[in-house]
Amino acid sequence: MSRKSKRSLKEKFALKNNLVKEALSEFLGTFILIALGCGCVGQAVLSRGVHGGPMTMTIGFAMAVTVAVYVTGGVSGGHINPAVSLAMCVTGRLKWTKLPIYILAQLLGAFVGAAAVFGIYYDAFMDYSDGKLEVTGPNATAHIFATYPAPYLSLMNGFADQVMSTAVLLLAIFAIFDTRNNSVPKGLEPIAVGLLIIVLTCSLGMNSGCAMNPARDLGPRLFTAVAGWGMEVFTAGNNWWWVPIVAPLLGAVLGAMTYIIFIEMHHSDPQSGGENEVRDKYELTNME
Amino acid sequence: MSRKSKRSLKEKFALKNNLVKEALSEFLGTFILIALGCGCVGQAVLSRGVHGGPMTMTIGFAMAVTVAVYVTGGVSGGHINPAVSLAMCVTGRLKWTKLPIYILAQLLGAFVGAAAVFGIYYDAFMDYSDGKLEVTGPNATAHIFATYPAPYLSLMNGFADQVMSTAVLLLAIFAIFDTRNNSVPKGLEPIAVGLLIIVLTCSLGMNSGCAMNPARDLGPRLFTAVAGWGMEVFTAGNNWWWVPIVAPLLGAVLGAMTYIIFIEMHHSDPQSGGENEVRDKYELTNME
Amino acid sequence: MSRKSKRSLKEKFALKNNLVKEALSEFLGTFILIALGCGCVGQAVLSRGVHGGPMTMTIGFAMAVTVAVYVTGGVSGGHINPAVSLAMCVTGRLKWTKLPIYILAQLLGAFVGAAAVFGIYYDAFMDYSDGKLEVTGPNATAHIFATYPAPYLSLMNGFADQVMSTAVLLLAIFAIFDTRNNSVPKGLEPIAVGLLIIVLTCSLGMNSGCAMNPARDLGPRLFTAVAGWGMEVFTAGNNWWWVPIVAPLLGAVLGAMTYIIFIEMHHSDPQSGGENEVRDKYELTNME
Amino acid sequence: MSRKSKRSLKEKFALKNNLVKEALSEFLGTFILIALGCGCVGQAVLSRGVHGGPMTMTIGFAMAVTVAVYVTGGVSGGHINPAVSLAMCVTGRLKWTKLPIYILAQLLGAFVGAAAVFGIYYDAFMDYSDGKLEVTGPNATAHIFATYPAPYLSLMNGFADQVMSTAVLLLAIFAIFDTRNNSVPKGLEPIAVGLLIIVLTCSLGMNSGCAMNPARDLGPRLFTAVAGWGMEVFTAGNNWWWVPIVAPLLGAVLGAMTYIIFIEMHHSDPQSGGENEVRDKYELTNME
Repeated sequence: MSRKSKRSLKEKFALKNNLVKEALSEFLGTFILIALGCGCVGQAVLSRGVHGGPMTMTIGFAMAVTVAVYVTGGVSGGHINPAVSLAMCVTGRLKWTKLPIYILAQLLGAFVGAAAVFGIYYDAFMDYSDGKLEVTGPNATAHIFATYPAPYLSLMNGFADQVMSTAVLLLAIFAIFDTRNNSVPKGLEPIAVGLLIIVLTCSLGMNSGCAMNPARDLGPRLFTAVAGWGMEVFTAGNNWWWVPIVAPLLGAVLGAMTYIIFIEMHHSDPQSGGENEVRDKYELTNME
Repeated sequence: MSRKSKRSLKEKFALKNNLVKEALSEFLGTFILIALGCGCVGQAVLSRGVHGGPMTMTIGFAMAVTVAVYVTGGVSGGHINPAVSLAMCVTGRLKWTKLPIYILAQLLGAFVGAAAVFGIYYDAFMDYSDGKLEVTGPNATAHIFATYPAPYLSLMNGFADQVMSTAVLLLAIFAIFDTRNNSVPKGLEPIAVGLLIIVLTCSLGMNSGCAMNPARDLGPRLFTAVAGWGMEVFTAGNNWWWVPIVAPLLGAVLGAMTYIIFIEMHHSDPQSGGENEVRDKYELTNME
Repeated sequence: MSRKSKRSLKEKFALKNNLVKEALSEFLGTFILIALGCGCVGQAVLSRGVHGGPMTMTIGFAMAVTVAVYVTGGVSGGHINPAVSLAMCVTGRLKWTKLPIYILAQLLGAFVGAAAVFGIYYDAFMDYSDGKLEVTGPNATAHIFATYPAPYLSLMNGFADQVMSTAVLLLAIFAIFDTRNNSVPKGLEPIAVGLLIIVLTCSLGMNSGCAMNPARDLGPRLFTAVAGWGMEVFTAGNNWWWVPIVAPLLGAVLGAMTYIIFIEMHHSDPQSGGENEVRDKYELTNME
Repeated sequence: MSRKSKRSLKEKFALKNNLVKEALSEFLGTFILIALGCGCVGQAVLSRGVHGGPMTMTIGFAMAVTVAVYVTGGVSGGHINPAVSLAMCVTGRLKWTKLPIYILAQLLGAFVGAAAVFGIYYDAFMDYSDGKLEVTGPNATAHIFATYPAPYLSLMNGFADQVMSTAVLLLAIFAIFDTRNNSVPKGLEPIAVGLLIIVLTCSLGMNSGCAMNPARDLGPRLFTAVAGWGMEVFTAGNNWWWVPIVAPLLGAVLGAMTYIIFIEMHHSDPQSGGENEVRDKYELTNME
């Protein structure tokens, strides 16, 4: 394609409307998140541990987040998560009117991402359980897509788990992007967010897989419902499905508020910026 | 919340006192460190190795440190460790009068963080050992919170272990933040500190879990004492509990001193800064 | 060697022709990619899992990419992959006339890299299977060099797998280098590309080892054909060999196009650069 | 310690002689490298795999290199390896007269580092094999300190292995620090070097543990010889000990030369610096 033809293509098709651009971006980002992230779970489960395990799932899912945020960060802020978008609205960083579009795009991206995992591993799924798509039992594969609670987990404990993990997620995201704190240099935030996902998955992943993201959970669950696993994906785990939707939304707001109350609200001077504050604590005599 | 109401909130509640801000920050940071860090140990232990192992604990705990330092770095220097705060006082980087407040905030944060781990994994704890909270034996869970010595370890060897590992920790932290050495770019120090924790845990973690942090150890130990594990958490391991308190404090000062004596003291010229010294060694003919 | 003699050497031998320089660079880079990358697979296979497994292969291969891109990035763009070079041509980032030379250099580098792996592990190969070099069966070693499909995989599913994984690879590479998106800071792109390879290998590696690179697959396959494994390396897996050549080329173009259509085409203003766009989404009230 | 007293201390003890500073730095760096690096091997071996394995050894040793380079980088260039220092001399980046001092300091640091590992794990060593320190057999512990060849490995293959791995090490180090290539941003080179060590250990670690560093191997071997393992540490593996000394020195020079011949010699213009060359390959139409 020549330069010239590209330019005229751009003139014809380039979107002038920011919200449409942002919706496309969130759709693509959440697609990548689920296609790669749930792909990691799929590889570990379908290979019965031969080609993956806790570490490949943890690191792989985290790097899926990193990649998705790189793809979408400059256009739509790289939310790829309705809970993040909600927290941005609540704290005045995103217009409320944009929220429904963001969430819809994220949900759609997650749904299509789940379809991609099923497609890419179609032969493996058929081989794994002779074509049967099961939600529970030793050959269960539904948990490749959506999260399900551990057998011992009560709804209340699971709800608290999702509130807390999403709260820590948002609290840390706010710190990572807070230029008046010791924020990550521009262009490296997606990697820091990936490292954050690693620790959250290693520490709070056992109860229910640590969704922390309503789109990441509901999108693939809807896909499994229509793709052959059936309505059991909603009833399993004592009707677990609504927990990874409601709890993360609540947790995200709590986490953002906690960061603001504990840290952001007390930054001494918005103008001066405090560029060297961290270094000061370590390097200079601090005898104020 | 509108911008305006946020501003007036800020006027009402923003803390003018630096020490209170810093205490809040250290409390929150140490809370995150323990909630996520001990969470990683909990996940590996309570899942009996299914959802975690040496690598998830190592990398998870290290990234918990990274996240905690991002949250607190710009406000309180991201110590989240009384041994670090002490070394900063000894080397004139923190006022001695602040030390008790820093330590208290860290201890409290660690205590509450341990409570969070217990809360989030309450159902898992009950399931793991039929509700019995044991300090030793095959169903022991106390080591999810505080560190205990390996059966072969003498107190003297354990003490030396904690002195040396904390000394290396501080020595390396001083290097990471030393702008006249090849210091880490601003905003990425927390990641370098995380990588440092990885190697310390991989190399010096076998004797006693490598606490290197009195608050990280005593806070959760106190929590287990009151939450049902009982006073055995203090008597176990030949009254081990005081070692991860005293040895790290000693080690931190030794490590800071070692860095100053071997490296910092000899920097040629504080003004010129030696920005390009490293490159020089590799790139330019160095025929002085 | 003195400075002076070096300078005259430079005068004599320094290449003035850019294309020759770039060919040398791509040759060296792809050599490193295969020598180290396939070396990781070799270590895991030949040690029968004692010195490696899914994680060392995943992280090792990814870091081989990172190292190879560091070595070649500033000279030839660090493609080390005909699919990447093709996508650069299609999108007007590389002259079409350069493409055959790039591909030839990459293929040659991969061939020699495979020879290096065989040489370095010659004793290990002999020890592993008493000198027999097998393509299939329990003592197979051909998959150390080229990729082969899993037993369950149909050609069609395998083709789709390689199209999609290479598409995501290119899409993400375009994001990582897109300065009008949230691009990685200069000099750190190779690390971001490495992290991208980690997630692709963890999520899409089970079907056929995720070659995503015609040179990476064909070069070592040609080497095994002549080095003693014989022509079975082409017939195995239902004549699998052409899939990791054709599918990645197609996928790369699709991925590049997807990025352009979803993201790049809609950047609002090429001049202003949008330096702070990401931060804006998170930090400033965004009430346009 | 007050500021004032520190200043006068500095006046009294600060070293004016660069070479002494650099020697101190290399000693400390190599000490850290061995204390932490061999500590990782020790933890995996002495815990019989419970607290470590291939991944903790790989990542741990690599991060030990990273930490050691951070501590020493700004003062002595962070060589911590006689093979690196030799390559710097051969390419005119270090004065030849400094070489013996660098090597001596590195050897001494490695010796003392090995002693630290033995000290910290003294109780563990005694527990592991009832106080017997063995070089070969199921309870061997000598390979915690120095490298030994795999049973299948011939001296010639082992020699080639060490030449090649050190050549790749140096080649990549030269790329990482080459500001006219796509070099790593200042202050992050130690992390890139760590990632490089990861892939080298994952891919070329099976033959003989991939020492690539005469001081890293000889220092600890000398320590084991005097600490109770006896002279068998030199005779084992068909008198293997000299290979990880001679081969890395040769490999380092070869690697440095290869980088210069393939890449560095052809950089078009030393003045202009080529700041944006990489980006150009990806982002701009490159229709020269």
